Amino acid sequence: MTELRHLVSIDDLSLTEMQALFDAAKGFSEDLTAHSKLCPGRISASLFYEPSTRTRLSFESAMLRLGGGVITAADMRVSSASKGESLADTVRVVGGGYADVLVLRHPSEGAARLAAEFSPVPVINAGDGSHEHPTQTLCDLYSLWVERGRIEGLDVVLAGDLRYSRTIHSFAYALARFGANILCVPQGGFELPDYVMQRLREEFGVEPVRANASKMGELAAESDVIYMTPQKPHQLSLFTDAKGWNVSHVDAVYMTRPQTERYKAGEGEDLSYLQLGKSALAADSLRDAVVMHPLPRRDEISAEIDSDPRSIYFKQAARGVPIRMAILAALAGELPLLDSPPAAGMPTYPVLEGENPCPNPNCISNTETRHAVPRVALASRLPLRVQCAFCSQRLVVGAVGCLATRRHHEPGSPGLRRVRPEEMRFFLDAQTAERAGFPAAGEAHPV
Amino acid sequence: MTELRHLVSIDDLSLTEMQALFDAAKGFSEDLTAHSKLCPGRISASLFYEPSTRTRLSFESAMLRLGGGVITAADMRVSSASKGESLADTVRVVGGGYADVLVLRHPSEGAARLAAEFSPVPVINAGDGSHEHPTQTLCDLYSLWVERGRIEGLDVVLAGDLRYSRTIHSFAYALARFGANILCVPQGGFELPDYVMQRLREEFGVEPVRANASKMGELAAESDVIYMTPQKPHQLSLFTDAKGWNVSHVDAVYMTRPQTERYKAGEGEDLSYLQLGKSALAADSLRDAVVMHPLPRRDEISAEIDSDPRSIYFKQAARGVPIRMAILAALAGELPLLDSPPAAGMPTYPVLEGENPCPNPNCISNTETRHAVPRVALASRLPLRVQCAFCSQRLVVGAVGCLATRRHHEPGSPGLRRVRPEEMRFFLDAQTAERAGFPAAGEAHPV
Amino acid sequence: MTELRHLVSIDDLSLTEMQALFDAAKGFSEDLTAHSKLCPGRISASLFYEPSTRTRLSFESAMLRLGGGVITAADMRVSSASKGESLADTVRVVGGGYADVLVLRHPSEGAARLAAEFSPVPVINAGDGSHEHPTQTLCDLYSLWVERGRIEGLDVVLAGDLRYSRTIHSFAYALARFGANILCVPQGGFELPDYVMQRLREEFGVEPVRANASKMGELAAESDVIYMTPQKPHQLSLFTDAKGWNVSHVDAVYMTRPQTERYKAGEGEDLSYLQLGKSALAADSLRDAVVMHPLPRRDEISAEIDSDPRSIYFKQAARGVPIRMAILAALAGELPLLDSPPAAGMPTYPVLEGENPCPNPNCISNTETRHAVPRVALASRLPLRVQCAFCSQRLVVGAVGCLATRRHHEPGSPGLRRVRPEEMRFFLDAQTAERAGFPAAGEAHPV
Repeated sequence: MTELRHLVSIDDLSLTEMQALFDAAKGFSEDLTAHSKLCPGRISASLFYEPSTRTRLSFESAMLRLGGGVITAADMRVSSASKGESLADTVRVVGGGYADVLVLRHPSEGAARLAAEFSPVPVINAGDGSHEHPTQTLCDLYSLWVERGRIEGLDVVLAGDLRYSRTIHSFAYALARFGANILCVPQGGFELPDYVMQRLREEFGVEPVRANASKMGELAAESDVIYMTPQKPHQLSLFTDAKGWNVSHVDAVYMTRPQTERYKAGEGEDLSYLQLGKSALAADSLRDAVVMHPLPRRDEISAEIDSDPRSIYFKQAARGVPIRMAILAALAGELPLLDSPPAAGMPTYPVLEGENPCPNPNCISNTETRHAVPRVALASRLPLRVQCAFCSQRLVVGAVGCLATRRHHEPGSPGLRRVRPEEMRFFLDAQTAERAGFPAAGEAHPV
Repeated sequence: MTELRHLVSIDDLSLTEMQALFDAAKGFSEDLTAHSKLCPGRISASLFYEPSTRTRLSFESAMLRLGGGVITAADMRVSSASKGESLADTVRVVGGGYADVLVLRHPSEGAARLAAEFSPVPVINAGDGSHEHPTQTLCDLYSLWVERGRIEGLDVVLAGDLRYSRTIHSFAYALARFGANILCVPQGGFELPDYVMQRLREEFGVEPVRANASKMGELAAESDVIYMTPQKPHQLSLFTDAKGWNVSHVDAVYMTRPQTERYKAGEGEDLSYLQLGKSALAADSLRDAVVMHPLPRRDEISAEIDSDPRSIYFKQAARGVPIRMAILAALAGELPLLDSPPAAGMPTYPVLEGENPCPNPNCISNTETRHAVPRVALASRLPLRVQCAFCSQRLVVGAVGCLATRRHHEPGSPGLRRVRPEEMRFFLDAQTAERAGFPAAGEAHPV
Repeated sequence: MTELRHLVSIDDLSLTEMQALFDAAKGFSEDLTAHSKLCPGRISASLFYEPSTRTRLSFESAMLRLGGGVITAADMRVSSASKGESLADTVRVVGGGYADVLVLRHPSEGAARLAAEFSPVPVINAGDGSHEHPTQTLCDLYSLWVERGRIEGLDVVLAGDLRYSRTIHSFAYALARFGANILCVPQGGFELPDYVMQRLREEFGVEPVRANASKMGELAAESDVIYMTPQKPHQLSLFTDAKGWNVSHVDAVYMTRPQTERYKAGEGEDLSYLQLGKSALAADSLRDAVVMHPLPRRDEISAEIDSDPRSIYFKQAARGVPIRMAILAALAGELPLLDSPPAAGMPTYPVLEGENPCPNPNCISNTETRHAVPRVALASRLPLRVQCAFCSQRLVVGAVGCLATRRHHEPGSPGLRRVRPEEMRFFLDAQTAERAGFPAAGEAHPV
């Protein structure tokens, strides 16, 4: 590869690249112990700023099965941080001769993006706060593909806490990209957040309709079910009636645990969480649905269905190894699975003056100020949609300053079209822009 | 191997299998670095729910010397447990593609047995609470065999805290199985517990007699020495007089540290613990006895004898590597050292109704209730001896209910003979049985 | 090798051996992934009694790149120490079959020397308290040599906290050994300690003179700069005037962070620490000086010079891997880089009676009394200079007892010349010697 590739977000991979990774993973899975000639002499470093044993072991197993070596810092916070070292310096040191690929877990959103900026070797995001965990998403998609032979057009139920689960959000975007249909069966009060719905609509053209869930049994007994499809409305109309989409057949049920560690005080108290057991699985529409779960589970999946052939959550976890073998081998340059250069993502621009516009206090751009230069990504110019290039948080923008003219424009205004993105500065509203020395462009500005 | 083998208890191995492991270990020990072609591509996972650096490093060294790889969770409690994952789920995930063999250390008795029930790959018990640590016992036996060329008929002193040392108990049973003679030299107040003595008598036919220890010097100065032999009484009489067995020659002294972490409040205070030093080793009967210790030691073995050729405790520790290489290679199926199927152990039966009869609060059947189905092992029908299949704790049984007739029987009664083991339910006494709906079989029951 | 070699102190290596290690490291660095045939089957053990992730990962990467395996105890204090095991026992166990080389990090000064006394395999000191960290020094020297092609005669600036930095002290001694010149630019109040200056003078013949730093710019703006050279005085006179050495060209600036963890209460408060940034680097004498730092840095090196080609601190860190590969391969006996027997160091003698003369409470000879036999090293007989053989602390000696005559002598006295070193006992003063039963040799002693 001529250009260094990283895996920070699932969006860093094209659909074609994902398919190539699936094919390679399937090859590996036929005999996991037969591929130790692929990466001899290569080393991956596990840099875990918070412990996550399962994820770490899965990556380390994958590297060892490729014949490579592993160096491990299972809890970086204890040591490095106490000496005050920045993440940017750590990745430059560890990526400079110690290791050939870095696997990073970090509690701050955007940490992996920052690491990728500074690292001399590929960085894999193994979870950055509540932002992304792309290899988990890849593993889920791969597992679905292995079970069903395709992803496009599948009907996939997302069940449980859809509000706080990072895994569910990433999985939903990825399903939409692949053209799968999504059935939302949320725990009451834990529906998909608006910003996720908005992104599904705006970026993937997904259209939500109410669903008739009479054949879904007790799984949907206490929820309104929403059906979201990227299909054309005229096709959809063939299958829906006045009451919405008729659920007659489900391909997969993806269950999540309650993300209690993210609940606000009082939230989720007395919560009677969904439980998938034998009786729920008896529903007509679920007769050949596979049951998935990112694990660890608590009680949301009853042990009584562990031996049901539709329960594939342990297989799903096991598939984390071959899919991570594929991504490691690809990033190490040993398998030609990734394009070069990468498919273009959103253009990003450094924030050349003023404060960091990212309002997320847990974003790496706010927690590691020594080396992180704030940076924004322009998702769309018209309508104007801007987000933090590190943590992907959408910026609320009421006025846009121009660094050349020192005037500000309203988001939808004609004058804004002539401002170059790298000269834009984003403000909450007109008053804030004025206080910062950017008066309104007004009449003085040629339209 | 057609049937999956585990090493949960030293009882899982036949004498023939142990001898095969010893032979393989001796071969390995000739050049530890020359066997890296045996397990390439294989991975062992160290799942340590409590830290035990020495044991962990020994296993990991063994796997690396076989050419395999290692993934390590040095303190699982910190991570997995905090997300509430059960042991049963963890071993299904890690054993499902991450690793080819699991090395488990756990603070609950019976944890390794539970893990073996659920794991798709072999489980090795690296210590489960105060229950078993079979590879330590194997290492001790192997070391004795290397030094003496045999185990049968040897005279082995067990010295120090014989009450709380798990290592001593397992070693004593194993010595009895191999037909060695045991000399107990306990620290005062820390004699072998009754249940250990009982098992030695009942299962191995060991007969304890008082010993005349006049030639044992200061080692036995403050203890009554007991000699236990599996030999026939008529042979024994040739060597004993009215005062008991005459100790004239000892083959090995196995010393243990005070297990202070298990002492009850006040116990062991002002304890002047046995110390083995130059003067103790000068005793006539110890002239060519090897000195063993499972390490770590504190002061019970004086540094002044470290250079004595009879002191083999560091060699003993070093032998942990080749013996663990042998067991890893055997379980991985790379060396044909184990029979298939395994030698039959005690039959075990799930507890189909009622409460868990195991009274041990630290047993995994009581600490992990989500997946563990209580299970009893029938050590003997006549006399009735029942124990927990996980932690081996003997059950006190005063009445046995029959799930078919819903009546209870007394342990020695003729009616009990017709009850099938899988239909037995065990009660402390007749009243408890009656309260649970199992009236006495009495006259109503055909005898 | 016929004699076991260790790397406890940089003084354990001759200049020739260091040059051989540099040459090997340079060969490795051409392709780090191409040397996995050198140490297959070999295992190194990381025994870290305090966490130091960077150092540990660097060693582990080096061993893996040589094709060897690694077993890791990232924080030994937690486990072993809690069971009360001595360091001497631990290295005998881990060095006895578990591993072929031990990499030891310990908070007590002299720990690595003690470990080397007991270990059956080579010990590498990865930092013992504030005493030595020889592979860091080797890495620094190697980096200088790679950049400049030589070390002898270079002009090297040591800047920042020169008082508490172990790294700086070791580096200064090593530079003097290689015949480099040192420019001290201390943070005010954090000058090189007297005992370091003394050793540089006495052992290496280094002569300090004041330097004219007018061409050093803001780096030296607030410090008196001292120039130290091992060159002959008549040569020096050619380049100095009444104001001292004229600094016109610097080869390297070695910057250190403030060692705040070692500051006494109140020390360093309101400290405005030196910062190396663009403006400081613009100084005439620094035009082609490389900038070095042992990392981690805080603010003493500004991120703005990270992209300056003179900034080599990340390269310097990366070079830790090949230089550690060289030392590991050499100690494992796979590369003939070390002489056998080693170049003779200072003679050392056990302390045969009386108390441990080492006054350092953090010395391993005082913290691990079970196995450490106190030992002194005789740096010089005339004048008498004695130090602890473990932690190198200089002993203040006012009287020397003779174990044969039971008399004491004054350090410079003629009578002392006839006392054999192994019969010397060292006292603070004459009174202390008398109280211990060693009256003055006085007239009674033949002169």
